[in-house]
Amino acid sequence: MDLSNYIRTINDFPKPGIVFKDITPLLNSPEATSACLEQLLELLGDRKIDKVVGIESRGFFFATLLAHKLQAGFIPIRKPGKLPHKIIRRSYALEYGDDHIEMHEDAIEKGDLILLHDDVLATGGTAKAACELIEHLGGVIVQCNFLMELEFLNGRDKIAGYDVQSVLKF
Amino acid sequence: MDLSNYIRTINDFPKPGIVFKDITPLLNSPEATSACLEQLLELLGDRKIDKVVGIESRGFFFATLLAHKLQAGFIPIRKPGKLPHKIIRRSYALEYGDDHIEMHEDAIEKGDLILLHDDVLATGGTAKAACELIEHLGGVIVQCNFLMELEFLNGRDKIAGYDVQSVLKF
Repeated sequence: MDLSNYIRTINDFPKPGIVFKDITPLLNSPEATSACLEQLLELLGDRKIDKVVGIESRGFFFATLLAHKLQAGFIPIRKPGKLPHKIIRRSYALEYGDDHIEMHEDAIEKGDLILLHDDVLATGGTAKAACELIEHLGGVIVQCNFLMELEFLNGRDKIAGYDVQSVLKF
Repeated sequence: MDLSNYIRTINDFPKPGIVFKDITPLLNSPEATSACLEQLLELLGDRKIDKVVGIESRGFFFATLLAHKLQAGFIPIRKPGKLPHKIIRRSYALEYGDDHIEMHEDAIEKGDLILLHDDVLATGGTAKAACELIEHLGGVIVQCNFLMELEFLNGRDKIAGYDVQSVLKF
């Protein structure tokens, strides 16, 4: 199954000049979703994971599935003001603007083995900020995996030193 | 397992006077997540589902898991401006303000059997708007299910006529 057939390219979204990769056709197919989940699990191999961290919002889809398959906890990293308990935050430069992300400070225990997941690796800014949040709480990042990697943006340079994996490369 | 032990009550979030039910402790426990998923599936029974619709963002967590378990498609209903393709939208009154939600117009085919899921049934405004979107595209709503129902807000009155189920009642 060629999963790239389930990714829809949308030009000029959310802003002129941005080429957006829409994963909703993939999510709408249970066969493609299962195949993608299996590929993400193969990229991880048999390494032990205590918690899967997913980045809001599109990272939530496969992060919850990965956590359930691995029988690991799921932890959301969210946009500002969404998490109700005590949080830590990091700012980052986005492909189109600036923002910051937040995580509950009780989400991770020191030494927890972490799989970080997001749908797209673009410039790597969000992923780097997420790694900083995880490590600030004492988490050990086993892998950062992504559905898609936009290679021309060199995002993996920003998270060099981690095991960075992606199912699809554009 | 008493799942209510995994729901954290936060007073005055996101605004003064609102009592927020935080599901992140539940998500952080694979055992509680699995038990909750099983209960949601039991509420559905053996009815056939073609697509599971989840409402942004907290509805995404269990909607993706339900879709995967049922081998159904997953469809996100999102907040304004997030879906990149052709959309339909509905406005609704929220527990704390007004907003609208959007769905891709090619997400559902006429006659698709739909399970609608969100984390919380509060006033029912979002759920009602979601049902309108689904039916506008020709979907047949089999059940609306929720992790939690805030009974004092009488949300199920707003979606009377549907099969409305929830795992926890507060």
